[in-house]
Amino acid sequence: MTNDAVRMSLEEVHETSRSLLLAQGFGEVHASAIARTVTAAERDECRHHGLFRIPFYVNAVKVGHASGVVEPELSDLSPSVLRINAKRGFSPLALERSYEPLIARAKQQGIAALAINNAVHLGSLWPETQHLAEAGLVALAFVSAAPYVAPAGGTSRLFGTNPMSFAWPRADTFPLVFDQASSACARGEIQVRLRDGVPLEQNWALGPDGKPTTDAKQALDGAQLPFGGAKGSSIALMIELLAGPLIGDTLSYEAGEDDKTGTGAPCKGEFIIAIDPVRCLSGGSREAQLAHGERLFERILQQEGARLPSDRRYQARKRTPQDGVLVPRSLYDTLKELRSGASSLRLQTYEADHNLLEGAAR
Amino acid sequence: MTNDAVRMSLEEVHETSRSLLLAQGFGEVHASAIARTVTAAERDECRHHGLFRIPFYVNAVKVGHASGVVEPELSDLSPSVLRINAKRGFSPLALERSYEPLIARAKQQGIAALAINNAVHLGSLWPETQHLAEAGLVALAFVSAAPYVAPAGGTSRLFGTNPMSFAWPRADTFPLVFDQASSACARGEIQVRLRDGVPLEQNWALGPDGKPTTDAKQALDGAQLPFGGAKGSSIALMIELLAGPLIGDTLSYEAGEDDKTGTGAPCKGEFIIAIDPVRCLSGGSREAQLAHGERLFERILQQEGARLPSDRRYQARKRTPQDGVLVPRSLYDTLKELRSGASSLRLQTYEADHNLLEGAAR
Repeated sequence: MTNDAVRMSLEEVHETSRSLLLAQGFGEVHASAIARTVTAAERDECRHHGLFRIPFYVNAVKVGHASGVVEPELSDLSPSVLRINAKRGFSPLALERSYEPLIARAKQQGIAALAINNAVHLGSLWPETQHLAEAGLVALAFVSAAPYVAPAGGTSRLFGTNPMSFAWPRADTFPLVFDQASSACARGEIQVRLRDGVPLEQNWALGPDGKPTTDAKQALDGAQLPFGGAKGSSIALMIELLAGPLIGDTLSYEAGEDDKTGTGAPCKGEFIIAIDPVRCLSGGSREAQLAHGERLFERILQQEGARLPSDRRYQARKRTPQDGVLVPRSLYDTLKELRSGASSLRLQTYEADHNLLEGAAR
Repeated sequence: MTNDAVRMSLEEVHETSRSLLLAQGFGEVHASAIARTVTAAERDECRHHGLFRIPFYVNAVKVGHASGVVEPELSDLSPSVLRINAKRGFSPLALERSYEPLIARAKQQGIAALAINNAVHLGSLWPETQHLAEAGLVALAFVSAAPYVAPAGGTSRLFGTNPMSFAWPRADTFPLVFDQASSACARGEIQVRLRDGVPLEQNWALGPDGKPTTDAKQALDGAQLPFGGAKGSSIALMIELLAGPLIGDTLSYEAGEDDKTGTGAPCKGEFIIAIDPVRCLSGGSREAQLAHGERLFERILQQEGARLPSDRRYQARKRTPQDGVLVPRSLYDTLKELRSGASSLRLQTYEADHNLLEGAAR
């Protein structure tokens, strides 16, 4: 394998993704929605959720785990709770179909929620909370994941890496957004350290024997740990409940069992809360409300060394529309082959592909 | 000072609290609501929010920082958002006045929120989420606090210890509840280590110079750190926004500035989200939904060393109705004096009182 990289413009990223998915039998609406999501990830240099994921989308359909053509179905569960059934389709379309009704409902009711069911989720969470914040809302999103993480004090895999995302609108710039796993570190970081022979930090993982380890191989065979000990474990537990039983969807371990062919693309639930901030005020304007948030942000940035969440993504976002993004040659070649309609998808394991991606990104 | 302790029944805790507050000029409804909150804390052996707090309630009124008689005012901000203006009264009454309408609204709408404004908050957050979960709801609560915590990467105090609480209903036992500060450790733990001459853990605090310290005195003069690094800092930031600007209330640093006499009882906002889980289902029963959550809890408890949040509180709750609770003699004497209507409140500093409490609790 070669580690050189190809520079692509964001337009090329989008067009490559879209036409590739169409060539692979995805419907127009799914292909376009996924292409937009993948392009947004590349734009923000979130490579793990960018072009790197395309073979996973294709493979999930190929093995019959997911659908690239099914139309999601939106319904009302209660005056302030909407549901979209993705029917084993991918999240980006389900999200795009939900935004307008969810925003309208939050503005009407003050607070509203969206239950996304049966969605194959391969992206970040920040696109959805960011979109809602760009519409003036405060948003929280919760999703479970493949089971890799032990509960605090425990010994083996149970929770997903379970991210949550939060977004707050800002008047003159991108929303304040965080999107963070409840695991102590990204799985990819362990893989990179395995490749580079670097030991893990304390409190990142357990070996298959349930004992703490700083050995990357042991950690990959064992379980990751939640961030921040028992407190992070509580957050992971909350996310399991909100994205699972609350909305009649899977727990992480159930999504893992459902992913029989090991696509790395769990079919699961997501829960989103959208709040219209001005409907939470008894007086005062939206402008004053946003200015109040800005005073906090200013105080954070006055402290040397502190930064706002997503700062790195936003720096990338200013750069990539002009500069484009670097794509590992091997990934570029795989995409080219898939775009030609090749049916012989040689999807490497998640671990291997991931390694490759990181190799190029450095 | 003597470190011996007096055993009190929960009935005595309640009656002592209530009659003391009445003797100190609190109105009946505030005195009763605070007594219930304090008694629940003692029942669960959360001593920091039990009788220990009574002198703080009294002092906050005495210095004109809070009211023990004002009636909170409930209103609708939108179809799914309620507001209660505590008018610088204490939280327990504002909460009790809000429960019924909030529960009804959540059941009607599927999801509802409560903005509590201008409340002097001296308690835990679990009583409110637990109460909502006992009514069958899923609940989240967020409150800011006195500014003691630096943002991740930063150098000085800005955030409060900002707890959040989450509760999930269970059919045959107490709700699953967590209530956790977003600081790495409780301030009281630092005080105890100062007294005992024990160094702090890494990543708990910064000294006044903004550099990491394991020295308790330096930490108390400097800033605490969020739990889990940047991720815990994001949680703290989210809580600042939800309990502050979102509902037109104070940020932690503003609540600190408002507390001019250093009562240790900040006047601030709280934000609660209540969700009716069965209104988030497209099919299936509440029983099946709760059973689904139980399957996760079973898997957690199957792992040796793992436990559910609040387990320690619930163990205490089984014990204290029979056994009563131990109250430090000096605190007992202070309460007795206050109960007789003494106006010469000799409130020690928070630090000193806290020390005393911990000394007796060991």
